[in-house]
Formats: sequence, structure tokens, C-alpha cells
Amino acid sequence: MGKRRVGVGVLGASGYSGVELVRLLAAHPGAELRAAGSRQFAGVPLGRVWPVFADAQVVLDDDPIDPAVWMDRGVEVVFSALPHGAFAARAAAFLEAGLRAVDLSADFRLRDPLEYERRYGLAHAAPDLLGSAIYGLAEWCDRDALGSARLVANPGCYATAILLAALPAVAAGLWSGAPILVSALSGVSGAGRSPALGTHFVECGTTAAPYKVGEEHQHLGEILQAIAGTCGGVTGGTGGHAPAASNDAPLVFNPHLVPMTRGILADVAVPLARPLERGAAIEIYRERYAGRPFVRILGADALPETRHVLGSNRADLAVRTACSGSLLLVFAAIDNLGKGAAGQAVQNWNVMSGWPESTGLARDGWPCA
Amino acid sequence: MGKRRVGVGVLGASGYSGVELVRLLAAHPGAELRAAGSRQFAGVPLGRVWPVFADAQVVLDDDPIDPAVWMDRGVEVVFSALPHGAFAARAAAFLEAGLRAVDLSADFRLRDPLEYERRYGLAHAAPDLLGSAIYGLAEWCDRDALGSARLVANPGCYATAILLAALPAVAAGLWSGAPILVSALSGVSGAGRSPALGTHFVECGTTAAPYKVGEEHQHLGEILQAIAGTCGGVTGGTGGHAPAASNDAPLVFNPHLVPMTRGILADVAVPLARPLERGAAIEIYRERYAGRPFVRILGADALPETRHVLGSNRADLAVRTACSGSLLLVFAAIDNLGKGAAGQAVQNWNVMSGWPESTGLARDGWPCA
Amino acid sequence: MGKRRVGVGVLGASGYSGVELVRLLAAHPGAELRAAGSRQFAGVPLGRVWPVFADAQVVLDDDPIDPAVWMDRGVEVVFSALPHGAFAARAAAFLEAGLRAVDLSADFRLRDPLEYERRYGLAHAAPDLLGSAIYGLAEWCDRDALGSARLVANPGCYATAILLAALPAVAAGLWSGAPILVSALSGVSGAGRSPALGTHFVECGTTAAPYKVGEEHQHLGEILQAIAGTCGGVTGGTGGHAPAASNDAPLVFNPHLVPMTRGILADVAVPLARPLERGAAIEIYRERYAGRPFVRILGADALPETRHVLGSNRADLAVRTACSGSLLLVFAAIDNLGKGAAGQAVQNWNVMSGWPESTGLARDGWPCA
Amino acid sequence: MGKRRVGVGVLGASGYSGVELVRLLAAHPGAELRAAGSRQFAGVPLGRVWPVFADAQVVLDDDPIDPAVWMDRGVEVVFSALPHGAFAARAAAFLEAGLRAVDLSADFRLRDPLEYERRYGLAHAAPDLLGSAIYGLAEWCDRDALGSARLVANPGCYATAILLAALPAVAAGLWSGAPILVSALSGVSGAGRSPALGTHFVECGTTAAPYKVGEEHQHLGEILQAIAGTCGGVTGGTGGHAPAASNDAPLVFNPHLVPMTRGILADVAVPLARPLERGAAIEIYRERYAGRPFVRILGADALPETRHVLGSNRADLAVRTACSGSLLLVFAAIDNLGKGAAGQAVQNWNVMSGWPESTGLARDGWPCA
Repeated sequence: MGKRRVGVGVLGASGYSGVELVRLLAAHPGAELRAAGSRQFAGVPLGRVWPVFADAQVVLDDDPIDPAVWMDRGVEVVFSALPHGAFAARAAAFLEAGLRAVDLSADFRLRDPLEYERRYGLAHAAPDLLGSAIYGLAEWCDRDALGSARLVANPGCYATAILLAALPAVAAGLWSGAPILVSALSGVSGAGRSPALGTHFVECGTTAAPYKVGEEHQHLGEILQAIAGTCGGVTGGTGGHAPAASNDAPLVFNPHLVPMTRGILADVAVPLARPLERGAAIEIYRERYAGRPFVRILGADALPETRHVLGSNRADLAVRTACSGSLLLVFAAIDNLGKGAAGQAVQNWNVMSGWPESTGLARDGWPCA
Repeated sequence: MGKRRVGVGVLGASGYSGVELVRLLAAHPGAELRAAGSRQFAGVPLGRVWPVFADAQVVLDDDPIDPAVWMDRGVEVVFSALPHGAFAARAAAFLEAGLRAVDLSADFRLRDPLEYERRYGLAHAAPDLLGSAIYGLAEWCDRDALGSARLVANPGCYATAILLAALPAVAAGLWSGAPILVSALSGVSGAGRSPALGTHFVECGTTAAPYKVGEEHQHLGEILQAIAGTCGGVTGGTGGHAPAASNDAPLVFNPHLVPMTRGILADVAVPLARPLERGAAIEIYRERYAGRPFVRILGADALPETRHVLGSNRADLAVRTACSGSLLLVFAAIDNLGKGAAGQAVQNWNVMSGWPESTGLARDGWPCA
Repeated sequence: MGKRRVGVGVLGASGYSGVELVRLLAAHPGAELRAAGSRQFAGVPLGRVWPVFADAQVVLDDDPIDPAVWMDRGVEVVFSALPHGAFAARAAAFLEAGLRAVDLSADFRLRDPLEYERRYGLAHAAPDLLGSAIYGLAEWCDRDALGSARLVANPGCYATAILLAALPAVAAGLWSGAPILVSALSGVSGAGRSPALGTHFVECGTTAAPYKVGEEHQHLGEILQAIAGTCGGVTGGTGGHAPAASNDAPLVFNPHLVPMTRGILADVAVPLARPLERGAAIEIYRERYAGRPFVRILGADALPETRHVLGSNRADLAVRTACSGSLLLVFAAIDNLGKGAAGQAVQNWNVMSGWPESTGLARDGWPCA
Repeated sequence: MGKRRVGVGVLGASGYSGVELVRLLAAHPGAELRAAGSRQFAGVPLGRVWPVFADAQVVLDDDPIDPAVWMDRGVEVVFSALPHGAFAARAAAFLEAGLRAVDLSADFRLRDPLEYERRYGLAHAAPDLLGSAIYGLAEWCDRDALGSARLVANPGCYATAILLAALPAVAAGLWSGAPILVSALSGVSGAGRSPALGTHFVECGTTAAPYKVGEEHQHLGEILQAIAGTCGGVTGGTGGHAPAASNDAPLVFNPHLVPMTRGILADVAVPLARPLERGAAIEIYRERYAGRPFVRILGADALPETRHVLGSNRADLAVRTACSGSLLLVFAAIDNLGKGAAGQAVQNWNVMSGWPESTGLARDGWPCA
């Protein structure tokens, strides 16, 4: 990368993914944070909203923002960490103004606007853009497509963990087609920063709580789309066969909230078409992710834990077999705000910029965090 | 129950299950705690080991204890909360001295001493007693057998949650025989009180950690035995067909430690022989547990959380179906120290004593615990 | 107490103090919960708002409630766990309808309505009632006054811990008059159940946060009033000399929020008029609280912890001296929802009813909570 | 700094301060980690002991280590994160071999070997070295002394927070000499990594626990020494007057363990010789720390929280007055493993190396950690 830093702006900078974007971009050798927006804290210096930053000079702009104003301030790329529904209506304005965009919400992940409407309960505000958006699951993206993308839909946190775990088996034709079963655990930051009873310390601090189990979670849409290989710009999957209607979903997903701040752990059980030994299974995963800096395949004697990836952009995977080799068990840990959100967004932007994908991103995590 | 209180003694009273036994027995109208043993804190008043008790007068005896001495002090029933291996060698002496025993360890849960040796890595010290021990999964026990039992093996905490969730489907012949998949979460008290790196606050306080996944966890032995219907004194199961060797286990179990003190949550996915609708599935569970005070089947709009059962002897179950009804999803929450240990031990003792099974036990839990 | 149960009602039953009142009253041999009110969950069965209760049949009434309606349903005593400002306006109606009331808010704690206005930022709605309200710090109340009270102001959680720690020295004339210094820690339930950014798990789950330090916390009003001995119905204090204006407050109070659900721990440093030895200091406290079931004075080798009092109505105190005996250090632990709120409310009601003050209340706490 | 990286070694690398040293040194542009020692995990790659590091190639050496061997491997500076007592006996060997040393234990903090023996219960193994060791409280060190030091005693975590808060008032002659009162809260990592009952999640995860209160904590020695201005290489303090015997300690210190992984928060109350207004007090602190990158004096409307400094080397201080200005209240937050241990060690080493003191150290912390 050259010496010039690219001007970047962050929408939704006061939220958890937003503040992680700010942290990562501040440390990124190719980025200069020129602007940040917030509906709630407009006019407040970022360092007051997030006192963890000692020197943050950026004052939060009142959002919605006029893309032209950010252009004038040198913003070339916008990262949106707004809730779903918010960026869809405004993406076109940013793109037309000449900016590139990485959207961390669900707005541009699904190809089908009706599927979006069904999953998220609102009509899509920019269906025309769905066809050109790239689904930025970095390790599975077509590099050229991602490199030239103007609009990248950053995958959901659960989706990232589950797909990194399931896709190697699916893409290699190992999956029998019987339902994939997923149980996953998330830290509370995954629920967002808006105060709600469910994220009150007393309500979630000493409990394990399943929610939206079975076929209810909205991330199922993007997961099934990726498994079917029909995401924008993503290779792999079963080869383009669309998954069946959702009441026949070939994947059952039971998410849980557990009392930790960050982290996602996913247990992914993939029924296999033919028996596989543990060593062979591990090898398939090692080969698939060889050379990819942010996926680590653990050995036969280790299992991932969320604490091992906190603060990093890494996904840790352990691969096991059960039932005489007829069932593949993959355990995946990511930082939901890292590889599951802001980290992957920066990783995608690195590819979009022609830089090494690990630029400004940590493989190592925070010990004792 | 009459006015007379029965003298009881607790072995391993300084541990987490032990202290919960002390708490429950202190509040039990039919019990009088006459003695408690501890290797580590012998000679120390219980109220110093557990300052949460303001008035505990019992001084911990040096363990091992001579059953005759406890008999002289009026102990008629011994509850053992010692680690596995410890009570096996001493059970005969207690029984021969005329006491009845409820053992909370794994020592008398498995019928087959070789299976015990394989799962726990040590030869069984009292194989002769295995045949007469009753597996005290209270809701599935033969009441007459339990009522007249002299030695009850209290089920493991995970096993209790999983079996309460799986057995109604298995016993009703709904299970297809394809592998049952379980992901379960446990609070840290499940790991016992002996200091270890894995239970250090810094190591487990901010992480989700799978362990002994697939077919490795020692509780699989008793779970498979109960599913096969071959436990001592337990009805239900598939009707006596022993499960296959463990490398063909029809149940895959992925346990995790999460940062909470108490509680177990189990996701149990049972492949069905024929499709079932959610309402019908719920009804089957409601009927099976009708009249049982400690199992609550939640409605179609609720899911269990561990915080809702803390401090109680209750199991909360939610029943769902997925994959067009071909997969049954049961979510179960218990307090690992309550229904998963000390509570169920007291429940078993109530039946052994001919009292209502809920005597001295709470259906309600602790709010905001 | 006779066999008749007294009908009780709880206002604000969906909050944390309210639910603890429900728990305690359900277990109280003299109480029958006839009604409960809630603005937010009107019409919802209590067992749905708080699934921890398996059998709660009470349906929450729409609040505000007509006292006559509750009278018709047999409510004789109302416990109000509403936020401050809410019960002040309605207390007269309840009292005039013939009910007795225990108010857990700050509304009737201060004798001076201007002090109330200054501390809480709103004019007092019922200044006429202030003179007759009893400040229900149970161990310091005049028994006859409390026994015949129709309106009891339950002390604040911090105030309870601090006053139990400071008053024995003050009342014995040991205090020099130099500023008493208090640092105190509270669990998050003390901040109430209304969702707010400050009680979001991510914001408070991994931090220690001082707030309203020095002379800012609103509880200072009742603390200083009690130290001056001018509370309604309370003996002790310095003998009736009103404390100086608050900018000369003889007590500095630094509260902190720490990541736990329940519990208050207070460090109270009292400058002494003349040096005192540790043993003598402990003895003074032991004598003052002799025979009081809910205050435990620890020995010279123990210190209180909040976990030792969770779920109980107990206060644990340790007494130390420093600086060659010129400074008294008292450490106090209570359960903010127990002795700091609902427990003490029930304790007060016991005295109001002529029952033993420990009726229905636990000295022992919850182990491993 | 030049392009050459200096070879560094870490003793006690498997502990919490040790792993933080490894993290910081790995990111330090002037350091190259050449060796790390561990008694417990000798022969194990660091990345297995701490899986949070994806690429750590260093294999832990069996400790005790021969300094000559480390010299041969290019180690020029040794950081010791061993428990107290361990490095004292070996420091001379490292120094004589030509290495410089930063010791994070208490071994070289006290000038008086008898005071060391009294505080730590063991005779000092290298009293001859005490005179030349520099007490590395970076903001208070004589720069020349620190710059040329061969042996630096890194201050204790509590001591760092308390001294940064108290010394400006003391050094400016504002302190009246009446006892300074300190209440402080520590995360559990401060208790070290060796498993013990007190750091078991179940024992410390839901409680606030005072310990070693009053005049008992061993850090009082170095705190009093610094206040008296008699530390090696430290300016400030009262000007060289040794503090009185410890039973007349002019500082009372009540530490507490609270359920968080990292962080120290200290409330420091300094009686003033003459009244001071809040604004003037803040200004004194701002002037004292002007230009120092790792101390931030908050404004009149903010208070420090431990979460705002996690992962950073920053200390956040808020300054208030109470009691009509006669009492100064200073609140200080640091990361006990950062500014309280490894961060300050690196800061000291930067000065020892003639580099900017902030080289390789973060002012910003980790959001949502």
C-alpha cells in the first residue's frame, strides 16, 4: 500500500460494531477516520461517548448525513454499522456520490427482496442494488468480484461462524443433505447497544437463554443462501441449487445468549454422505483454509474458546467426527465484533483496496480480556 | 409425614452439592442434620466453611467416618456428595450398619462395572452392589422400587436434563434411532470446588468453552443406559435394548462451560420416526409429566432459561419441532445443584420415606439470583 | 401469630424489590398475597413476568389502583415498591381507606419536605404525612412507635448498610465529629429494572464505576438525618442535633456499581473521639446488636462478603480499628434486595403486626448464588 | 529509536503479567522476544499455553535459567514476572552477566530489607542491590536515574493507582498529615494465576470481598515509602521524612476483590492542610501531569471507570473536593496488568532505552472488553 491514507467514515459509530470499526480504522495504516455519524450523540466528541479513546478528536455528525458533505471532507469509503433498514434507503446516495460502502447490517446480504421482507419484516428500500452487492464472507469470496465491489454486505456474526464451519464440507460434497444442526452461543454485545430488558445485567448476567430457535432466526436466510451457493460474489456452496422453502430448511439453528461481553461459539453438526475419519476431516479443513491468515484449524487435542479470539479477527475451528464417522462436528469461535463484524468489514475493505487482507488486523487476541 | 425428624448425615459437605444438601435438609420438615463429613475441613464448624449459614452448629467430622459412630449419633440416612470413586468403597459399610444411602456421585449409576471402569478410569470397588442400586431419575423411577431402595444412585446433572428432555419421545416410540444431538451449557459449580486452572475466574469468566465433545463425556454411559431402558429401577427407554458400543453411540453430546455459577441448559434434538406437529409434541410431554411437581412444560411462546430454575428443584422444558416435523427439539433448564444434584437427592429420599415427593423442596426459584 | 393470614398487596411488583417482596410474602406464614399492581404489565399473570415462580396465580392489576378495590379483595397492608414520587401522591388514599403501608421508596424517609425537594428534585406530594411516618431501620426503631405505625418509610439500601455500621459508634458518643468516610459497592439490581445504558450488560458487566461521589448521592439526606437522631421513630444518633448544611456534610459517601446482581458492601471509617482497641470496638457492636436476629458481628479473623448474605435478611459487620485506634473501620454487607429493601420491609411489618421480627425471614442465605 | 530491535526475555511468561508483557513486547517496535521462561510449562510453545496468540513461536524455557544461555540467545533485557522472592535471589546473576532487568515483583521496591522481611515474611536474598534499584513509578521517577538504571523495581498495581492519585497533593504540600483513606477495587487477575479457592469462579464471581484491610496489605510499605519520598530514584513525596512505624501509618488502605478480570479503581481521600476548591484541585493535577502521555485528568463532569482503561497503559484520574474543600477526593482507574504491571514495565524500559516513553504502548483501551 502506498503512503496515502484513504479517508473513511463510519455511520452508527456509537454502537458496538461502530466503535470497533473506529478502533480498527484508527490503527489501520491505510485509513484516516474523517467522519463519524450518530443519531443519538450528534455533536458529541467520540472520546466522550467512548472514554476508552483518550485522543479521539472526531465529533459525531448528526445522522442522516449528506454524502456530499462527507465527500467534501475527504471520505471515500463509508462503513455503515446502522441497524438493518437504515442503510438500505441511503446506500444509493452514497454510491452515486462516488463512495464505496461496506454495510454491516443485513440490508444487502440477501439476493431476494422478498426473502428480506419475510426475514426482517420490512420492504427492501433498494432492491435494485441487491444484484451488485457482494456478500463479504472474505474466505469464500471471489477475489476479483470483491476487489472491484462498490457495495459489500458484511455477513452476520452468527452466519460468519456457521458458514466458516460448514462450507468446507458442503463445498467438498461431503454433506449428505440431511439437516445440519447448529447450537450457538453469543455474548451480549451481539444484541446491540440500545437499552432493552433482555440486555439488562440482572436479566442476562447469570443465565443461559435460548431464543429464536429452530428455524426462526433471521440469519438463516443468508446462511441457507450461502450454503446453496447463491450469494453475490461467493463461491462454494452446493453449486447453485437454491435451498428449499424455509419450513424445510436443511439447517436448524439454536442461538443462545450467555453472560459474556463478546464472542460467538458455534457447534455445527454436518451429516456426511459417507464416513470420514477425524484426521481426514481436519486435513480437508486445513487445505481449504491454507494460507488464509484469519482461520486457524486446531489440532486433534484442542477445542476453540471465545476468549482465544477476543480482540482479533481470527476464527478458530476444531473438526471432529462422531457416530462412526457419519457425522462431522465443527466447533467455531469468533469475536462477534471482530471477524463477526468490524474486523471482517476491514478485511473486505483491504481486498477492495488491493492491499493484503490482513492489513491493520490482528491475528492475535487479547489475553485475559 | 409424622412429627419425628429422621437423622441424616452428609458426606462431602464442604463441596457445592454438599452445601446445597445442607441447605435443603435444614429446611426439610422431616430431616435433622446430625452429622457432616469433610476431609479438608475436619473439625471446622460448617458455618465457618460456609459463612452463608448464620447458625450452622454442625462441626465437620474427619472423613472417612465410621458408620457406627454416625449410627450412634442417630444418622439413619447418608447422602454422599463425595467425588466418584470415594463412596463406592464405603457404601457396603454404611448399608451393613443399617443406613440407607443416596450417592450423588457416578459410583452406582451404571449397571456394568466394566462400563464404569471404561468411563471413569478406575475399577469399581463394590460391583456386587450395582445390581440393587436404583437410578434415581425421580420422574422415571418405578415408585415401589425407589420406595424400598436402600441405595440410590442420584443421576448426573447433565444426564438429568438430557433424559428428562429425551425420554418422553424415546419411551413413546417416536425416536427414529438416528443419532440424538445434544449441546448443553453448564455453570461453573458443575466443575466442583477443588481449585483448578479451568475454574479460575480469569480463565472461565469471560468465555464459552466446549469440552469432552462428541462421545467423550463420562455421563454418556448413564444416558445411553437410561435410553436403552436398562437402568436399575427405571421404566421407559427403548425397552431394554442395550445401546451399541460407544463408538456407535446413538447420542452425541457437546457440553460447554459458560460464565455463570449455577444452571444447566440442554438443547436436545431427537430425529423422529414420523413427522409430528409442535402442538402434538407439547401435548405428549405434558401428558407424560402431568402431576409431577418438578417438571414444567412451557407453552409454545416461551423458552427455558437457567435463571428461572435457580434455587428450585424444577426442570423447565420447551418442546418444538423443525424440519417439517421430522426433528423434535427439546430445551431443558435445571439448576445443576438442585434438580441436577441435591434437590433430586432429597426428592428421591422423600419417595424412599413414603412422603410426598415435593416435601421440603421448592418449585419456585430465586428471582434475580 | 394466629392462624389467620393477613391480606397483602404489592405495588410495583414487576420490579426487583417488588418481586423480592412477592417471594418473601409467598413464604410468610402470616401473609396472603391478594393483589399486585404494575403499570407496565397490567393484566399479565405474575408467573409470566417472573417465570421463576412456577405457580404464581396473581394477575397484575393496572396501576394506579383504587384502594377501595384492594380493600374489597381483602388487602389490609400495602407494600409499595414504586419509584420515588409515585407513592407520595397516593399514600393518603390508602391510609384513609384503612390500609397500613410500607413504602420502599424515599418518599417518606425525610422529615423535611424541602430536603426531599432538594435531594429528589420534586416537590413532596404529601408533606402532611411526613411527621407521622416511621423510618423503619428496624434495629434502631422505637418498637412501640413502629408497632403502631400506619405508614413506614423503609430505608434505602445504602443507608441501611451505612447506618447499621455507623450508628453504634455515633450513639455511644465515640465519634469525634470529623467526617465519616464511606466507600460502598452495589450490585446492579440496585439501579432498578428500567432498561438504561448504564445497566446494559456490556456497559456495566466488566467495570467498577463510581458515581454521585462525595456529597451528591440522594441517600445522604436520610443518612445524615439518622446520624443526627431526627428520624421519625428512630432512637440513637447524636441526640437530636441536626446535621449542618449539606456542603458541610459530616459524611462523605462514594458509591460504586460493580458487576454483580445483588449485594451491597460498605466500608465505613469513623474518626473516634478517643482511641479504641479492636476487641473493645467489637464488643460495643456485639452488645448493641445482642439479640437482634439479623445483625451478625463477625470475629477478629473474618470480613463480610456480599455472597454470604445473598437471599437472606442478614447484615454482616466486621469491626476494626486503625491509626493507633483513632479510626474505627466497619465493613458491612447486606443483600440490597433483602435487608436493603424487601426483607427489611417484611421485618418492619412483622413488628407492626406484633409478630416476632424474624417471622418468614431467613437468617441463612443462598450458597453459590 | 534505531532500526535494531533489542533482544528481550520474560521470566514467568505463563502468568497474567507475563502474558501481558509478551503481548506488549510483540507489538513493540524496539523489542524482539528472544526467550521466555516458565517453571510449570517448560518445553511448551507459548501459543499452547496462551492460545490467544496465533503465531507465538517461542518455546518456554525451563526456569531457573542460566543468564549466560539467554545472553547467548541475544537477550539484553530481562523482565521478571515471577512471584516475590523468586527474582531477588537471581537478579545479581542476570546483572553480572550484563543484562538489565525490570522486576515486576515486590523484591526491589523497598529500600529497607527489614521492612521487606516484615511485609513479605521472608529474608531478602539480595539486600546489596536494594540501594541501586530504581522504583519505577514512571511519572515520578528522576529521568536520568531511570534512564541509566540497570535494575528497575516496577511498582505494585495498587501502589501505582494510589500514588498517582495521592502524590500530587502530597508533593505540593497540600496534605494535612491526617490519615489518607483509600478504598480500592481489583479485578481477579490481580490475584495471580495459581489456582486457589479464592479465585474460583464460584467463590469470587458474584461477590464483593474486602481483604487485608486497614494496615495489613503488603503494598502499604512501598506506598508509605513513596509518600515519604524515600524511594530509589523517585522525586516528590513529603521530602524525605520517613513515615512513622506502620501501626501509626498515615494511610489506611482497604482493598477489595470484585468480579471482573482486569482493572483497579482506587478512591483516595486526602485531608488537606487548607481548603481547596474543586477547580483549583483539578488544575494542580493537570499541571503536574501535563505532557505525560499516560495520565488523563478528567473534567468536573466525569469519573473514571476501569473499563475505560482496559488494554491501555493509561491512568484516568478524577479530582473532587468535599467537606467545604477540606478533603480532597481522587478517583483513579488503571488496568492492573497494564499501567499496574506490564505496561509500566515497558514504559520504564522505554526510558531506560532513551526512547519516547510511549513507544509501543497504547493510550487508547479496548472498547467493550
